[in-house]
Amino acid sequence: MITFLSDFGLEDEFVGVVHGVIAKIAPDERVVDLTHQIPAGDVRAGALSLLRAIQYLPEGVVLAVVDPGVGTSRRAIAVESPWGYFVGPDNGLLAPAVAMMGGASRVVSLEDPRFILPAAGASFDGRDRFGPAAAVLASGQAKLEDLGPLVSGGALTPMLLPLAEVEGDGVRGEVWWIDRFGNAQTNLGPDDLVALGLSPGDSVSVEIGATPYEIPWVVAYGDVDFGEILLHVDSSGLIAFAVREGRAADRMQLGGKTQVVVRAKK
Amino acid sequence: MITFLSDFGLEDEFVGVVHGVIAKIAPDERVVDLTHQIPAGDVRAGALSLLRAIQYLPEGVVLAVVDPGVGTSRRAIAVESPWGYFVGPDNGLLAPAVAMMGGASRVVSLEDPRFILPAAGASFDGRDRFGPAAAVLASGQAKLEDLGPLVSGGALTPMLLPLAEVEGDGVRGEVWWIDRFGNAQTNLGPDDLVALGLSPGDSVSVEIGATPYEIPWVVAYGDVDFGEILLHVDSSGLIAFAVREGRAADRMQLGGKTQVVVRAKK
Amino acid sequence: MITFLSDFGLEDEFVGVVHGVIAKIAPDERVVDLTHQIPAGDVRAGALSLLRAIQYLPEGVVLAVVDPGVGTSRRAIAVESPWGYFVGPDNGLLAPAVAMMGGASRVVSLEDPRFILPAAGASFDGRDRFGPAAAVLASGQAKLEDLGPLVSGGALTPMLLPLAEVEGDGVRGEVWWIDRFGNAQTNLGPDDLVALGLSPGDSVSVEIGATPYEIPWVVAYGDVDFGEILLHVDSSGLIAFAVREGRAADRMQLGGKTQVVVRAKK
Repeated sequence: MITFLSDFGLEDEFVGVVHGVIAKIAPDERVVDLTHQIPAGDVRAGALSLLRAIQYLPEGVVLAVVDPGVGTSRRAIAVESPWGYFVGPDNGLLAPAVAMMGGASRVVSLEDPRFILPAAGASFDGRDRFGPAAAVLASGQAKLEDLGPLVSGGALTPMLLPLAEVEGDGVRGEVWWIDRFGNAQTNLGPDDLVALGLSPGDSVSVEIGATPYEIPWVVAYGDVDFGEILLHVDSSGLIAFAVREGRAADRMQLGGKTQVVVRAKK
Repeated sequence: MITFLSDFGLEDEFVGVVHGVIAKIAPDERVVDLTHQIPAGDVRAGALSLLRAIQYLPEGVVLAVVDPGVGTSRRAIAVESPWGYFVGPDNGLLAPAVAMMGGASRVVSLEDPRFILPAAGASFDGRDRFGPAAAVLASGQAKLEDLGPLVSGGALTPMLLPLAEVEGDGVRGEVWWIDRFGNAQTNLGPDDLVALGLSPGDSVSVEIGATPYEIPWVVAYGDVDFGEILLHVDSSGLIAFAVREGRAADRMQLGGKTQVVVRAKK
Repeated sequence: MITFLSDFGLEDEFVGVVHGVIAKIAPDERVVDLTHQIPAGDVRAGALSLLRAIQYLPEGVVLAVVDPGVGTSRRAIAVESPWGYFVGPDNGLLAPAVAMMGGASRVVSLEDPRFILPAAGASFDGRDRFGPAAAVLASGQAKLEDLGPLVSGGALTPMLLPLAEVEGDGVRGEVWWIDRFGNAQTNLGPDDLVALGLSPGDSVSVEIGATPYEIPWVVAYGDVDFGEILLHVDSSGLIAFAVREGRAADRMQLGGKTQVVVRAKK
């Protein structure tokens, strides 16, 4: 089983071509599309998406391509982990999910020409290099070490994700995902709020830019009225802002890296 | 076989995660995506989409999630029908398709914790509750009654869909779907027009808001010139407005609930 | 194996319904979606997408529907080629890919009612005619000649694609694809530039409308600085404009048919 994430979008035939390449090499492998609408070149967004999803995916192979550095010296890699294999560019995209699933035991650089499709011009690495590698790993047609030389040290390029920081009597975090429904997930966990003396049911003082809010910490959307802002532990286990049957991102003008300060209970 | 419809969109990894959950539980089940771009929270649009599609789907399990009431007391259900199973929120989304396929023989509330994934925070019911229920029903790993208590009476929350109404010498209906091509499907059937003395080939008097139109009732797009408005029985068997190689919705300013009055033949 | 391309979009249930129809007829056939976001009615864009992809698809059946002439006298066809079958409207959509894969050996008009689903109103040919034909061909339930009468002569409606033209001391071509990343593929090949005395590494004089550019012909994105315009042979083997980690289409105001003149080396 292969799970496939990219920033290829669905307007062009990129995703379909990679599916075609995989099906030609390994006709019996199933491919699940995680999403292909990661914003173009946004490695962090791709890494976070994969991190949120990985524990729900069947063991096997992750094929992930968000690759603004294609055509530079960044490595193309396959990673072995206790969970399975990860195939993609070595630019931080894979690192958080690999770490969550037990870390990399071995890393190879995808250089063996037997597993690289020839291209008429520039390489489309999803099609020519990453797709074939995922297909042969998933189907057992090749072993990791067949795909290219071991990367000595075996270290992946890390993805630097911001941590919550203490600030005065509060904690500073940031928004790192706005979903389709306008919900805004932050990098704060419930522990960060508990450390401030807060607990579910409390009204929480939050500053977003210069704007102060008082927002109820609830368990379920139904705990507030229609159109009311709420704060809760979302389905990824992180603090998120939402509006019951509305869009928190629009109401509170939240974007991908908006800074958020939560104040201690008074 | 599972058919999956939602308003999750494709920008985020929601749909892929549900696919992953299903594949983990039931690796051999195929999942067909009906659409995931139902407008967010638009239960009526989801119900109509499923209603149009259901007769074309292979028997098995429908997994449908358009769920603005997540986190409230609305029920999560699985429905048994002569056609197969329907899994989703009990908010009217499933009712029209269930009725078309022979009605509900039994309904259970999805409460058995054996078939609910634990969540770190708020439940993402597509992932934690509906997806697992669909997977175990489709693969035969559980029976309907294993999933939770029977809903006494077995009645689904209905979806109230507008009916055509007689108005003076005409009939009033409404638009209930604008498709990608700008075609506007109404809730009127050809019988409604025949009852007014109209038949294919006639020019039909239609009022949309205060604007009167004379529109030919044709059988095929090719029966009018390029750019001309037409009215026909569309591929769902309903009266629809279209423009040959154009967009009726834009030309006639039609939206999701635009009122339409068709006048009797003079 | 069926590969499916269309302009149906993903907002509506069109694509899912065709998948459902295929699964009902041929439950074991895999269907790979190439793309469904060809601009509505843009036969040329669909033909080019299929042409770029075809060599990467597993042999079998292509189901392609971009069909602004639905409801007119245009033919619905299935084409036999050395590669496999192509099913779709006979409007030029299939012709370039068929030609690339060895040409049409036989063509039939999809008219046999045994393989056409009845519709309540207008035919939705993807659902009622093309989908069933692809399903029975892929699964071997019918032979080509079962689907309808042979088209005498066996000629497909061609797709007229523009060729590069000599102009003064240069060559005139046009843009024919802007991809998601803003890269602009032209109909010029590297041979056209070599014939002008140019080679990789050169700075190339290009006129786009009245605007002159000097653009380096490079092999990899990494050969220019961030934000710089480059020209290269892209992954389809055609000359394309790109910007390293940027969007050439926006920077250079390129669209689907923008004229491009490349001047000879001085």
